[in-house]
Amino acid sequence: MDKRVEILNKLRELMKEAGVTYYYVTTADYHGSEYVNDFFKEREFLSGFTGSNGNLLVGQDFAGLWTDGRYFIQAEKELQGSEIALYRMGEEGVPTVNEFLKCHCKDGDVIGFDGRTISLQFGKDLQKKLGEGITLADQQDLADALWENRPSMPCEPLVCFPEEIYGASLAEKLEQVRAEMKKENCQSFVSSKLDDNMWLLNLRGSDVECNPVALSYVVVTEVEAYFFVQDSAMTPVAKERLDNYHIHIKPYEDIMTFLESEVIPKNVLVDQYSCSFTFYRILEKSHSVKVASSPIVLLKGVKNPVELQHMEQVYLEDSAALTKFICYMKTKADIPSMNEYTAAMLLDDYRRALPEFQDLSFPTISGFKENAAMMHYEATADNAKRLEREGMLLVDSGGQYPGGTTDVTRTFALGPVDTTIKEHFTLVAKGMLALTHAKFLYGCTGRNVDILARQPLWERGIDYKCGTGHGVGYDLNVHEGPQNIRWKFLPEMKEAVLEPGMVVTNEPGVYIEGSHGIRTENVMVVKTLEKNGDGQFLGFDTLTYVPIDRELIIPELLGEIGREQLNEYHKQVYDKISPYLSREEKDWLQEATAPIL
Amino acid sequence: MDKRVEILNKLRELMKEAGVTYYYVTTADYHGSEYVNDFFKEREFLSGFTGSNGNLLVGQDFAGLWTDGRYFIQAEKELQGSEIALYRMGEEGVPTVNEFLKCHCKDGDVIGFDGRTISLQFGKDLQKKLGEGITLADQQDLADALWENRPSMPCEPLVCFPEEIYGASLAEKLEQVRAEMKKENCQSFVSSKLDDNMWLLNLRGSDVECNPVALSYVVVTEVEAYFFVQDSAMTPVAKERLDNYHIHIKPYEDIMTFLESEVIPKNVLVDQYSCSFTFYRILEKSHSVKVASSPIVLLKGVKNPVELQHMEQVYLEDSAALTKFICYMKTKADIPSMNEYTAAMLLDDYRRALPEFQDLSFPTISGFKENAAMMHYEATADNAKRLEREGMLLVDSGGQYPGGTTDVTRTFALGPVDTTIKEHFTLVAKGMLALTHAKFLYGCTGRNVDILARQPLWERGIDYKCGTGHGVGYDLNVHEGPQNIRWKFLPEMKEAVLEPGMVVTNEPGVYIEGSHGIRTENVMVVKTLEKNGDGQFLGFDTLTYVPIDRELIIPELLGEIGREQLNEYHKQVYDKISPYLSREEKDWLQEATAPIL
Repeated sequence: MDKRVEILNKLRELMKEAGVTYYYVTTADYHGSEYVNDFFKEREFLSGFTGSNGNLLVGQDFAGLWTDGRYFIQAEKELQGSEIALYRMGEEGVPTVNEFLKCHCKDGDVIGFDGRTISLQFGKDLQKKLGEGITLADQQDLADALWENRPSMPCEPLVCFPEEIYGASLAEKLEQVRAEMKKENCQSFVSSKLDDNMWLLNLRGSDVECNPVALSYVVVTEVEAYFFVQDSAMTPVAKERLDNYHIHIKPYEDIMTFLESEVIPKNVLVDQYSCSFTFYRILEKSHSVKVASSPIVLLKGVKNPVELQHMEQVYLEDSAALTKFICYMKTKADIPSMNEYTAAMLLDDYRRALPEFQDLSFPTISGFKENAAMMHYEATADNAKRLEREGMLLVDSGGQYPGGTTDVTRTFALGPVDTTIKEHFTLVAKGMLALTHAKFLYGCTGRNVDILARQPLWERGIDYKCGTGHGVGYDLNVHEGPQNIRWKFLPEMKEAVLEPGMVVTNEPGVYIEGSHGIRTENVMVVKTLEKNGDGQFLGFDTLTYVPIDRELIIPELLGEIGREQLNEYHKQVYDKISPYLSREEKDWLQEATAPIL
Repeated sequence: MDKRVEILNKLRELMKEAGVTYYYVTTADYHGSEYVNDFFKEREFLSGFTGSNGNLLVGQDFAGLWTDGRYFIQAEKELQGSEIALYRMGEEGVPTVNEFLKCHCKDGDVIGFDGRTISLQFGKDLQKKLGEGITLADQQDLADALWENRPSMPCEPLVCFPEEIYGASLAEKLEQVRAEMKKENCQSFVSSKLDDNMWLLNLRGSDVECNPVALSYVVVTEVEAYFFVQDSAMTPVAKERLDNYHIHIKPYEDIMTFLESEVIPKNVLVDQYSCSFTFYRILEKSHSVKVASSPIVLLKGVKNPVELQHMEQVYLEDSAALTKFICYMKTKADIPSMNEYTAAMLLDDYRRALPEFQDLSFPTISGFKENAAMMHYEATADNAKRLEREGMLLVDSGGQYPGGTTDVTRTFALGPVDTTIKEHFTLVAKGMLALTHAKFLYGCTGRNVDILARQPLWERGIDYKCGTGHGVGYDLNVHEGPQNIRWKFLPEMKEAVLEPGMVVTNEPGVYIEGSHGIRTENVMVVKTLEKNGDGQFLGFDTLTYVPIDRELIIPELLGEIGREQLNEYHKQVYDKISPYLSREEKDWLQEATAPIL
């Protein structure tokens, strides 16, 4: 018998004992992190499915796995023999988990799950859909008992850089947070989001892949602040700093008891996105809970002058590393001996050579030819495509440094490229440059300016199925809110006004399945321009300085304004990056950034 | 003693008798119409203030008038001697009416007003703000008894054009409305909005200035439909049509009793914007009321092919009338003998000469030089500025025809004009043309495309403090929803996706106080372009064909693309409009539309 069938049957016994009708397992940690540590991969343990998105539902005579279009083929393969049915999310006629439960449950039934891995919104929606007759038993981690050799919870030591690099002390940040709590009429605030916690305490960690964060919770009241963190993550330096600021250090695992106790003042603020269903339920019992945006999200999203100054420098060095890689690939590399994976490794090495380098900000994407059309493609040592001296290589990569997080994409030719592809490349560059030069009134959100990047493509009936830009952390998550640049209206997503000091990516692209993928991505800072009777005007400053492949540009298509913008950008690339290059690289860059006429 | 002081004192006596602490009078009819008939101008009667926006609050020792920035000077003048205090809305420290009442009322107090002139939202907000201890007495028209010679309620005969011109019969429209009611899970729908009622019944009226609508209410149930209209507005032809479709005709004044009776099935749909507070209160007593968007708003907003075909023709004739006027003003008129008002009259005469002309779609705006900087300027016979052979005249005007409503603005030189002004004119034209040529994916709202019109101005640090475009009716109101083109996010305003068949204006401008005002306005229809794997692309077709003053264009500033777009537009203007012109006018138009190099 398949090992998984055995385990599921054991699980069903435990469910019976616990009185649970359906048991539900998600793919999430307790903090809504983008990357999930092995410790939290219970769904993978139970189902054998390894994709990054998938939720498992188990009943006495049923087991089903829900996943999205990226994983249909992989899931089908991996689920073979498991007796788990595949539910293809988004396909017509396929019910959501909520709909499935609504259809199969009757009053008196109990749905079990670990509510720390479920968002407040999902839990509330589920309860609403199922009605009060069905119980949500949200404090169940049934599979834990079956999981022999469960990986241990990650617990790396806290990292404690000098506070000066953050431009604001822990005390100042606490004051800002308390001011925001007051505006919301709340006397306390519970924060589960790891990057928010790190930002507030001016600490870093390494418990989540590519995210310099430590597993933790923070509770702030009008006079006190509590930091829940694993004992063995604490270091003397971190402890000293926290003590200096009178932050109470508590064991990570004590958070639930703490929330249950009535230490926390009555009006509690929780973040609508990262507060877990279980936390909400616990707090709700004895508190008035206000569900809103975490005050930290906006405070963290607007970088202060010290942070911006550090980021400028970090981006120059990071840009230089990528420029060196491109130069090497274009001029020296023995391309036929390389594949997408070894190319990525090589680029990572260029970054690792930087003195301040800590980590990648996400696993490097390296896609050759048609593989670049897959937006979230990750080449591995086993599956990587061999490179050739033709077509294009797309590399999307970034690093974590004490002075900032980087994110940059370039697509460049390794040899001859078709005219259609060059056309697409040119239109992408045109849109990217147009958005860079946007000038707009204060009050605009990303939805107002998105069309500037997309228009050259839309004019030709081409779209990219993703946003144009996202916020970027300061030595924190490479994807952060609240701002973004998108065109679609999503009712569940709040639109944030673009504030001076916000950092956003600008990454239009073209993705033609089976043929080619192009993305050109710079990171920009929202800056203040003139203020007059008509309002405060804003624009963008660029942080990324890496050449855009001139070989792939069709000058007429770029247009007069586009050519001026590209030439001006390339002039700056040369001026800013050449100091970091060898003589040979410098010569190459001079040509690579020469004006297009 | 000032007559108004006497009247207010009498009103105070009535208030005492009725147990009313504060009496509140708005500027609105029972239907939220844009123009308010004299019958409804109770606030003007009581206060003497004649502006189009102002609300009066009267207490035993207090009387205050709230109005907006457009009217501060006028109100101050008109209120002299009235003992009514002026509350300048929007100025710092000035409370809103709600805030004032919150501050001055105590439990047990009663606020009296005619709730038919108050929106559901305002009423709800007020009640929420004041709390349950304060009573809103919403069925009070106290001043009626004091108003000798109150104008009678307008009551013009219904207009009954052949149904064919609407592209859908009353029966088909009823079916569409019922389908939408069903989606909302409602068995009945109460409609107060006059243009919605006219659209549904394929009738027109003339009870509101410039709006071809009749004072009326409509109630639709799953099987019946009721039309509440003044007896003497009914004509034999209209009656015959309504009888054919089994529409119950009821006296206008019976609506409240009807809503109070329990004839209407339980789940009632009302429109969130036009349902009055009183209607909501009555219905709420014995019904479950769903407050949502009127299903008619979107149905009416998307024009069908028959309507579009009529509009195309109507716009050509209307464009020709304006073109003739411009030609006359530029080549023949004895300008120094004219003023803004006589110019407007002349333009209105050109429109009146059109065989199908019924009415203006709004009072013609004719602003010379600095007067054009006032967005809602209306020259009167008394205050009009004399014209000269220099500077620019802005005319914003439109007509009502059985086959559509028009709205068009042109600004043109009467003589020499400064270079700065020409720069502004060119940037406005550039933005207008860029928006006209927008290509965008289905799902975009006006917020996504607005920046295309604004960008040339924003690049120079200039903005216009209004939306770029609004929906236009089909022989109905010149301003209609649900779509619009704006950049600002207003939480109270729903954003509507741009649907093929929607008609919108495109009217960027520059308004420099004390110097000049420019607006160039065309009307466009949303049209379908290609559909492919990336989605359904949409664009705009233009309906308005009137030359844009070439004398005011700086070719280099318009740019290569702008010049191409303008030349192409002007070619079409000549091709489409010249058949309506005299030999002489044709010659002028040829020059006026010659390509710019």
